[in-house]
Amino acid sequence: MLLRTLKYILIQSSRKFHRTVMAKSKFEYVKSFEADDKILQNCWIVVRIDGKNFHKFANTHNFEKPNDIRSLNLMNFAAGCVMKEFNEIIIAYGQSDEYSFVFHRTANVYNRRASKIVSNVNSLFTSSFVFYWNRWFGDQKLQYPPCFDARYVLYPTTENLKDYLSWRQADVHINNLYNTCFWNLVLKKGLTNVEAEEKLRGTVSSDKNELLFSEFGINYNKLPAMYRKGTILLTKQIKIDESRTRKIAIPIYDDLIKEKFWKEHDELLLRKAPKYYEFPTDLQPLPDLVKELLNV
Amino acid sequence: MLLRTLKYILIQSSRKFHRTVMAKSKFEYVKSFEADDKILQNCWIVVRIDGKNFHKFANTHNFEKPNDIRSLNLMNFAAGCVMKEFNEIIIAYGQSDEYSFVFHRTANVYNRRASKIVSNVNSLFTSSFVFYWNRWFGDQKLQYPPCFDARYVLYPTTENLKDYLSWRQADVHINNLYNTCFWNLVLKKGLTNVEAEEKLRGTVSSDKNELLFSEFGINYNKLPAMYRKGTILLTKQIKIDESRTRKIAIPIYDDLIKEKFWKEHDELLLRKAPKYYEFPTDLQPLPDLVKELLNV
Amino acid sequence: MLLRTLKYILIQSSRKFHRTVMAKSKFEYVKSFEADDKILQNCWIVVRIDGKNFHKFANTHNFEKPNDIRSLNLMNFAAGCVMKEFNEIIIAYGQSDEYSFVFHRTANVYNRRASKIVSNVNSLFTSSFVFYWNRWFGDQKLQYPPCFDARYVLYPTTENLKDYLSWRQADVHINNLYNTCFWNLVLKKGLTNVEAEEKLRGTVSSDKNELLFSEFGINYNKLPAMYRKGTILLTKQIKIDESRTRKIAIPIYDDLIKEKFWKEHDELLLRKAPKYYEFPTDLQPLPDLVKELLNV
Amino acid sequence: MLLRTLKYILIQSSRKFHRTVMAKSKFEYVKSFEADDKILQNCWIVVRIDGKNFHKFANTHNFEKPNDIRSLNLMNFAAGCVMKEFNEIIIAYGQSDEYSFVFHRTANVYNRRASKIVSNVNSLFTSSFVFYWNRWFGDQKLQYPPCFDARYVLYPTTENLKDYLSWRQADVHINNLYNTCFWNLVLKKGLTNVEAEEKLRGTVSSDKNELLFSEFGINYNKLPAMYRKGTILLTKQIKIDESRTRKIAIPIYDDLIKEKFWKEHDELLLRKAPKYYEFPTDLQPLPDLVKELLNV
Repeated sequence: MLLRTLKYILIQSSRKFHRTVMAKSKFEYVKSFEADDKILQNCWIVVRIDGKNFHKFANTHNFEKPNDIRSLNLMNFAAGCVMKEFNEIIIAYGQSDEYSFVFHRTANVYNRRASKIVSNVNSLFTSSFVFYWNRWFGDQKLQYPPCFDARYVLYPTTENLKDYLSWRQADVHINNLYNTCFWNLVLKKGLTNVEAEEKLRGTVSSDKNELLFSEFGINYNKLPAMYRKGTILLTKQIKIDESRTRKIAIPIYDDLIKEKFWKEHDELLLRKAPKYYEFPTDLQPLPDLVKELLNV
Repeated sequence: MLLRTLKYILIQSSRKFHRTVMAKSKFEYVKSFEADDKILQNCWIVVRIDGKNFHKFANTHNFEKPNDIRSLNLMNFAAGCVMKEFNEIIIAYGQSDEYSFVFHRTANVYNRRASKIVSNVNSLFTSSFVFYWNRWFGDQKLQYPPCFDARYVLYPTTENLKDYLSWRQADVHINNLYNTCFWNLVLKKGLTNVEAEEKLRGTVSSDKNELLFSEFGINYNKLPAMYRKGTILLTKQIKIDESRTRKIAIPIYDDLIKEKFWKEHDELLLRKAPKYYEFPTDLQPLPDLVKELLNV
Repeated sequence: MLLRTLKYILIQSSRKFHRTVMAKSKFEYVKSFEADDKILQNCWIVVRIDGKNFHKFANTHNFEKPNDIRSLNLMNFAAGCVMKEFNEIIIAYGQSDEYSFVFHRTANVYNRRASKIVSNVNSLFTSSFVFYWNRWFGDQKLQYPPCFDARYVLYPTTENLKDYLSWRQADVHINNLYNTCFWNLVLKKGLTNVEAEEKLRGTVSSDKNELLFSEFGINYNKLPAMYRKGTILLTKQIKIDESRTRKIAIPIYDDLIKEKFWKEHDELLLRKAPKYYEFPTDLQPLPDLVKELLNV
Repeated sequence: MLLRTLKYILIQSSRKFHRTVMAKSKFEYVKSFEADDKILQNCWIVVRIDGKNFHKFANTHNFEKPNDIRSLNLMNFAAGCVMKEFNEIIIAYGQSDEYSFVFHRTANVYNRRASKIVSNVNSLFTSSFVFYWNRWFGDQKLQYPPCFDARYVLYPTTENLKDYLSWRQADVHINNLYNTCFWNLVLKKGLTNVEAEEKLRGTVSSDKNELLFSEFGINYNKLPAMYRKGTILLTKQIKIDESRTRKIAIPIYDDLIKEKFWKEHDELLLRKAPKYYEFPTDLQPLPDLVKELLNV
């Protein structure tokens, strides 16, 4: 046993020795300028990506206003690809042209090196967005390569993390209600952008709900949940046919601001194995997103 | 004048006031967890991207060994797209599945915020790589979305920066000479990988040159410069027809370890306007890379 | 009300304007090279200071081995001075030539700028150590200015923080038991340092307890708690005479590895007001440390 | 030779192995929360310390206005002690209650760990300030322990570094001229602070020079250079008696904004050995500061 240990030590050391002696060029010293960017242990790591100049991108690609379902589906799908690659992401949340990925506080991917984590998530998201464009946009061709920026933010406590996600979801509600009013005024009533802005200035939520209902016959709460709440991606065990299950990211359109959500999915924060999930019967068969992810 | 100043101050302040008062949700405090990552002033900023798992990627896409010209062209082209977007990049250098972008020490893009710079460069590179795949790979379809990681390194002096680039170029020389021998032994002589490795162990450059010549009739120095030296991209003024010039990234296959390179292109470090550049007559008409970049 | 607000905005803005216009010299740009070093919100901040070269310092000043009570008292007192200055320190823990100060996770001192926090704590500790030397060392003159280094470490959870303190306290136990054996062997039995080391090599705690008892008649557990457990400083309300109480740092020699400690002092983690504390009657009157701190 | 190398490797490795196996307590994992804070290679490192609340400190200790020579001497002396300890400091510059220490860009002290460098410099400065107080303040007793904060700033180029020092020296000029006027008005003319401020508002340098001359008969340029220019500390070889020289920090009151200064002391930036320095004959014998430093 001792001998084996010594032998192991010797081999490891001589390898190291060898590598050192073989040091390549006199320029190699420049490697020492790289900074260590290891992320503080035991913090939740949020990587958020944002579309760059997506206002222009949306116009160029004839996005529907206020929500383009093709774009949302593609965003969700690209995010699903990221989750498939990184199994320490416990939840992802997307809305509009942004997506947040939450790595568990115990995650150890790339030894927690910030630049590795952020750049790989962002690059894979971008790459999937372009690669799978046609699956979701059909005839509408991609006109030029889109770009996403990315950053990471740390949250020391579970409460902070929940508040982060709640912040993003509250943002969806505020923006989507406003945008729904705005674009109905512009597209259906023919108001100019400035006129629509003025009409909405100072209104509160109930005013906007009322406006949608009285002027356009729209019951805001009946609009698709994906528009109103954004998309939550969670990895679950699902039934894919009579005899088999698979672990895959599934979309959920729920209210994560409420504690109920976290109780229902208590495996997330505890980093337990994905739970079995049954899609609501009215959603059967599987949503396209999941079907496609299963094929990737 | 004073009145105008006061009015300006008042408007700015009231806007700020307004925004503060309108602060959205009680969750918004989580924004304060984002760290400031402004890069030290007056340092050269190198952003280096690296293909993730490109060994597998190369096999899946039938890359030619030791160099696949389609892949190198695509890498160069994606890098050219990045340079077109960021005019504070003074030079880019690529080899194999990696690319380095150098922002001038005085660059102020994104107010020098590290995550913004790195993620945008990386995302745009990735996006362009996927989007323009077909232009360079023809019938060979892209099988899955590739991924690149990215990091930044700072260099305080011009000498350090040159040494960084020299380090990368010395790396190409060492690797390409080795790989050229290795793959010739494997592909033409039918050696196994292990046999080829053993045959090359302990050889120095002259041995490898000799081996290539005597066994395969290859004069290493006659192989394409792009393979032996990597690709340097510089923004230059070029003539695109009889009456017009354009500013565009052009590929140069030169020895940047030598001081001569930096004298010839002395506008780079000084951050002067791009110089006029005439392609060697034997390269006329314009290289495909440049022609395509002009169309983007 | 609106007018008052506007007036306030105007005054603030014009001040800012004034300051900007008055910008001093052309050299002032160098200020922008200072990095922002704000500490992540909601993490526990531990500042630990360590004596530099205290082996030599102890010899020069004839410290008693294995513990010099004068030095420990002075360390504790200097730490008490630091706690008096920074009311967001909830607990301090000292042993040998090191001291750890814990700022509450909600602390906002110096806007959480790391260098400000660390340097002020360290400088005030150093300064107090030198300034109050005579109070605790009497005739033994200070021979040269001592030096302490300092660093900060962040802990995201309360459990991590407790483990940090437990780590330091476990360290005291291991070291002090060893040192007590070592110095008794050297000072009372006349062993050389090397002989003492050899005798202790491979022994476990029970061996060392046995050695102390059988060879020196020492019951380790009866040695002063300050030596065995280090010193915990907590801010408490204490009675200073019949009619008055004061808020002051008091020394506690307890086992903070046990949960009981944290229950007894549950105000610490909750950042509530200091609790009333009554010294054990056998300690009455007040310990010197407290009496002196009350005078500072 | 090979055998010796192997033996060395073996010993090193087994030590490491031993240490790993002996890992102490289950709490030790908390060490991994310490962040790496290695400073970027090849940048000039400036450590600046500042007196905390020195307005109050000056009043408590009856500092003379606008300059207290005892305090300046003590600051210089404490700085000299720091330079004696850290031989990679090439220049220090002090004024009022602040001091800047410049580590050569190639410095490797503490492996360039920021917290180590900053805290040790600051602690040793503070400690020396308190310890040597009596030498410079005589009967005026130190009333309470003073405190200094500290930070570091990096400068990538020599020009940036010179501009930093010039910034501090320009600051002295502006402040000292103002303060000299202010305190003469208050102390000699009996103006209140507010009156003095008002009288000086809007005046430029020439106005202030004129005011000093016409109202108080003071030729500003004849005031001690230490007040007008601050103190530069450089390590030089000096003659300490007929046969011996010593390397020691000496005070220089010169204009470092001018290029002439850097030419005269060209060993600093080049990190060459200290030059021989002869004090101006009218300064012979050695300044007290130097005499005392030689004794430390």
